[in-house]
Amino acid sequence: MSDAVVLLSGGLDSYTAAAIARAEGFRLNALTILYGQRHAKEVDAARAVATWLGVDRHVEITVGLGAFGGSSLTTDAPVPKDRPIDPTEIPSTYVPARNTVFLALALGWAEALGAHDIFIGVNALDYSGYPDCRPEYIEAFERMANLATQAGVEGAQQLRIHTPLIRLAKSGIIRRGVELGVDYALTASCYDPGASGEPCRACDSCLLRAKGFAEAGLSDPLLARFAMKPLEEGTQ
Amino acid sequence: MSDAVVLLSGGLDSYTAAAIARAEGFRLNALTILYGQRHAKEVDAARAVATWLGVDRHVEITVGLGAFGGSSLTTDAPVPKDRPIDPTEIPSTYVPARNTVFLALALGWAEALGAHDIFIGVNALDYSGYPDCRPEYIEAFERMANLATQAGVEGAQQLRIHTPLIRLAKSGIIRRGVELGVDYALTASCYDPGASGEPCRACDSCLLRAKGFAEAGLSDPLLARFAMKPLEEGTQ
Repeated sequence: MSDAVVLLSGGLDSYTAAAIARAEGFRLNALTILYGQRHAKEVDAARAVATWLGVDRHVEITVGLGAFGGSSLTTDAPVPKDRPIDPTEIPSTYVPARNTVFLALALGWAEALGAHDIFIGVNALDYSGYPDCRPEYIEAFERMANLATQAGVEGAQQLRIHTPLIRLAKSGIIRRGVELGVDYALTASCYDPGASGEPCRACDSCLLRAKGFAEAGLSDPLLARFAMKPLEEGTQ
Repeated sequence: MSDAVVLLSGGLDSYTAAAIARAEGFRLNALTILYGQRHAKEVDAARAVATWLGVDRHVEITVGLGAFGGSSLTTDAPVPKDRPIDPTEIPSTYVPARNTVFLALALGWAEALGAHDIFIGVNALDYSGYPDCRPEYIEAFERMANLATQAGVEGAQQLRIHTPLIRLAKSGIIRRGVELGVDYALTASCYDPGASGEPCRACDSCLLRAKGFAEAGLSDPLLARFAMKPLEEGTQ
């Protein structure tokens, strides 16, 4: 059994990517990064998901990206709501270089563990237009990572960045997760949840999630947890 | 005047790189990363150097790389002493993916600032064989960085990773710094300093520093600060 480092945010995508890694036979080392996001709900979700997955180790690491500003997810700037999502425009929820910081930390842990596989749940189809979700970015990171590390110097086994969701629609991600038996009621997607963790149902992340469940013909178990009904058609 | 993000560790190299950035006309935004190194002396040095440089902003950010283990700089493992330095072998002081984490954080800040220039004081000549100091690594990081960010998507001005020291010997770095008037008594290079910050004079970093000053025909002002004499010839 080989070790893999899986980035686990507490959201739907990273959970599915980790469940795929497990189904592929990897031993899971889950990495959750507290980067200064405005709410701790997704960290609670990451812990619940890690328990469900039966990960070998779960490391939480803090890095205060809020010190740099530049994002409505790490500052007091308002999160956009009920907007049509246009992936050609980068929204204020973009956190500068977030995936680069996340993958760099995953790379550090992978190298310390002697692991050669990193999983990240990025996808470039039903997404918010973040530049660091695109396949060409991931390929460039992988190439850099192999030059950055001992493995690269020794020319031994190469590091791989696995992105099993990158070309899936949100509905396809959800279908794949359901096949693997995941419990999406454990996850937190909302950028701006209420005090009890209930989703706002208006931010990009809530809208993409609702669209995904609708297109998959499934109901979102998270809504049942909060006694909410699916959004009516045409409101998404 | 353009903004540049300069990685400032408190050591001799990053100070020189930042002084070069200043001489090239950049406004300096200094980034010091508290990554779990065993001693805080270099952070004190970074503050003194930032003051000397007259930086526009100085951000200190904490990220506990010690959680991953794998290095004698972030754990209780002993630091190698009085060894012949062989750059073909990666020593225990190597911190997995450290420069990738540092550059990723610098990239995040640069993007939030709208800066397109990052300075890092790596060098690949008088060094300890760390893979993430090599020119091919830096080039791959720069390529990835341009795909990771808004600048890359817009195809506007490209991000540049400046490595003004990468092909200099330690003596050349010191000569360049002295030309720029830097005060190397402010810096901390030692991996394992004493309680008052006095250098151990036996770790790789102390030995490379001593060799650099000797080859430059200069005396190290840090030694005078601690009333130490240069090491005798032949002991280096």
